[in-house]
Amino acid sequence: MNHKMIFYLTAQIVRAVGILMVFPLIVAGVYGERPSALAFAGVGIGMILLGTVLTLKKPKDTSVFTREGMAVVAVAWIACSFLGALPYFFSGEIPNLADAVFETASGLTTTGSTILTDIESMSKSCLFWRAFTHFIGGMGVLILMLAILPQSDTRTMHLVRAESAGPTAGKLVAKMSSSVRILYGIYIALTLTEMILLLCGGMPFFDAITTAFSTAGTGGFSCRAGSIADYGSAYVDGVVTVFMLLFSVNFTLYFMVVTGKGLQALKNEELHVLLGIAAVATILITGNITSVYGSLLKAFRYASFQVMTIISTAGFATADYTEWPFFSQTILMVLMFVGGCAGSTGGGLKVMRIMVLFKSALKEIRCTLSPRSVVVVKCDGRAVPKEVVHGIGYYFIVFMFLLAVSVLLLGLDGHDVPTTVTAVITCMNNVGPGLNEIGPSGNFAGFSAWAKLLLSADMLLGRLEIYPLLVLFTVRKK
Amino acid sequence: MNHKMIFYLTAQIVRAVGILMVFPLIVAGVYGERPSALAFAGVGIGMILLGTVLTLKKPKDTSVFTREGMAVVAVAWIACSFLGALPYFFSGEIPNLADAVFETASGLTTTGSTILTDIESMSKSCLFWRAFTHFIGGMGVLILMLAILPQSDTRTMHLVRAESAGPTAGKLVAKMSSSVRILYGIYIALTLTEMILLLCGGMPFFDAITTAFSTAGTGGFSCRAGSIADYGSAYVDGVVTVFMLLFSVNFTLYFMVVTGKGLQALKNEELHVLLGIAAVATILITGNITSVYGSLLKAFRYASFQVMTIISTAGFATADYTEWPFFSQTILMVLMFVGGCAGSTGGGLKVMRIMVLFKSALKEIRCTLSPRSVVVVKCDGRAVPKEVVHGIGYYFIVFMFLLAVSVLLLGLDGHDVPTTVTAVITCMNNVGPGLNEIGPSGNFAGFSAWAKLLLSADMLLGRLEIYPLLVLFTVRKK
Repeated sequence: MNHKMIFYLTAQIVRAVGILMVFPLIVAGVYGERPSALAFAGVGIGMILLGTVLTLKKPKDTSVFTREGMAVVAVAWIACSFLGALPYFFSGEIPNLADAVFETASGLTTTGSTILTDIESMSKSCLFWRAFTHFIGGMGVLILMLAILPQSDTRTMHLVRAESAGPTAGKLVAKMSSSVRILYGIYIALTLTEMILLLCGGMPFFDAITTAFSTAGTGGFSCRAGSIADYGSAYVDGVVTVFMLLFSVNFTLYFMVVTGKGLQALKNEELHVLLGIAAVATILITGNITSVYGSLLKAFRYASFQVMTIISTAGFATADYTEWPFFSQTILMVLMFVGGCAGSTGGGLKVMRIMVLFKSALKEIRCTLSPRSVVVVKCDGRAVPKEVVHGIGYYFIVFMFLLAVSVLLLGLDGHDVPTTVTAVITCMNNVGPGLNEIGPSGNFAGFSAWAKLLLSADMLLGRLEIYPLLVLFTVRKK
Repeated sequence: MNHKMIFYLTAQIVRAVGILMVFPLIVAGVYGERPSALAFAGVGIGMILLGTVLTLKKPKDTSVFTREGMAVVAVAWIACSFLGALPYFFSGEIPNLADAVFETASGLTTTGSTILTDIESMSKSCLFWRAFTHFIGGMGVLILMLAILPQSDTRTMHLVRAESAGPTAGKLVAKMSSSVRILYGIYIALTLTEMILLLCGGMPFFDAITTAFSTAGTGGFSCRAGSIADYGSAYVDGVVTVFMLLFSVNFTLYFMVVTGKGLQALKNEELHVLLGIAAVATILITGNITSVYGSLLKAFRYASFQVMTIISTAGFATADYTEWPFFSQTILMVLMFVGGCAGSTGGGLKVMRIMVLFKSALKEIRCTLSPRSVVVVKCDGRAVPKEVVHGIGYYFIVFMFLLAVSVLLLGLDGHDVPTTVTAVITCMNNVGPGLNEIGPSGNFAGFSAWAKLLLSADMLLGRLEIYPLLVLFTVRKK
């Protein structure tokens, strides 16, 4: 591996994140928060200096292959999770370093699990930084999914992309080719639109911008302890629900719309499956909780929000689903694994993988029962290459293995079985809340320091789709 | 499909099970239980008559292929679950038919989940029949795994067997070739040995025979409400622990021992993995519960029993693990998926599948990270054919899908999430107990009739390894 280049590119990313700390610094200035301002300024300048010094000398060998690309992604995400945690720590807002790292990893991986027990007591700049890490993480995922990974072979990607339409964009650490710029444009435009719509609904400016950031990354951090429920507005609920859906859609579809292929985008099979799953789950849960809320409309409002928050892996809350009938809870637990579409900011296994897994399972059953039959797995009318199908199958197996191992390790922390199991599920799928201790009204404060770091690792595993992290632990045999 | 032959063979099995009802009839006679005696006599004679009439005319076309073999297995298991439930129902011992079917399916699939709330109030003959269904089911699984399925292609089997040593036995509906006879001999000899050892420990004769039957099938029905804990004997605990282990071992290994290849049998990799998992789990749990029991020895006694009861999927209990520290519970929950070895009477995914899944996942990771490397999945030093590896991968995917669907359906019955999820897990893996309502001290009485039938179907799916049941729902395209 070209270690120098990995180091060099990671340093560039560290510098970029350092520069982005100017935004929470501005917020600290506006609200006159001295300790936070000092922390963001100090850490930001430190990261910029560090990044600049380390990138002074460009390596002679600038070759970067798949493995290097994955390593950069993994190292950068880990480094930023630690460095991004420092402002929380130095400002005294989160006095425990493991907590601060958990919160930052949860932000950058757009998970949205929190260790905070009193959110409103935090400084505005730190609340802003929390939401902003979702926004940065969402952007990062878009680079990762749309620019870096597609260059690698199908084994790595394991995802069938909306071919021919998507950006086949440039070199590693995106040279900001026009297509990547368009995607960022779409990402920012959608975020701004949501913000404006939230402002129109009477949401305070600060809340609107942080909520929009959190939705964009399908993260789920809110600046209120009661999450979106605190605004008590059906309009706000509706806006957030719709935007959670929009950010769960494969961004290459928006690219297609922008480049005049809107009709083709609407025919996307993954989109149909996402909408289908969301619709069925919403209808079932609406029916199940109507008696709780007394009216069908109210039940629909809470059901649709909670379904979208889980399936998009945002993790906002307008209701505590742990108080709903168990049928609804069971549906939501299963939905945690689904996640958004491939190439969206959503987490989970991704709708595309679920589709391919389901179709290949059906195919396998048919082939087993009628060995002579020849069945091909198709998506969007095209045959999916065998290696991609197998790759997705193995991704699922590796995912479940890591999940089982994480559950066993987390078991050592001594929480009840549902808490332990759903903590791992919600972190690996980048959702946010779970059951019992970590339900929508609970938080992750009860875990010990090492358990928080383990869960942070699970979030990274899920967000980076496992392989980039594993690359760090392997030695290549030449 | 040769429907006439499926019908014919199923009728033969029904007749055989009818004949086996003579044993509970004898028990009813000994204990003077009139209603039970009448029920067993009536149903037994009915089944024998039905089976005899339906087999009077042998079909002209006696060809039986894999699909027919699987269909016979599935139809016979379902038919026997219903017919075997009738004595419970007609004797009035289990007045609800869905309950009776659940109990019989749980018996024949050697699951051991029960709907009984007051076990000791049952007639002795019905208690005998419960344990005897485990014994019959265990035998059935041995025929299925060792005689029928190996004939079909690797896709169906998905299991690598101890080659060259195992019985390559005869035609469908075993012609009792010498090797199958030896296997049955081993099965019965092991059962008798356990019974004698239990008698030596002072266990009453009736209890010893039923406990031995339940252990043989790795079922878990006990004639005491408190299960094995009721005997309060470390000796009894130890005997049952050892025999649960013995019945979780691939029976072809015993075959090898009998045919003078004992040393080769000891080198079996699956055996080593089984012992390794059991040892590690026992050590961890012993350490975790020592403070609960106050002594290391006592902790070891309860830990080893509970680990073996879960990994062998027997489901006996000498302690209520739901009162143990959560770490131990988490380990036991994960172990539920492992199960016994391939070709044993144990359920679960089987150690062999876990081994191949784990190795192929490692292989996939290596291949993804170093695309040039060539890695082969090996078991017992031999390369496992690619189709077998893929087949096992798909088996796992199909298993997890069916598990998710079952969880969603069972969710409709309105039990808490841990109960719902572990009910499906424990039934599909043929273990027995779960968490919360269905813990070792609980039972399945709280489920509604349709939920009991759903869980019965899950038991059959797990026991028959899915495909034989699916064959019933497919139409073959010629």
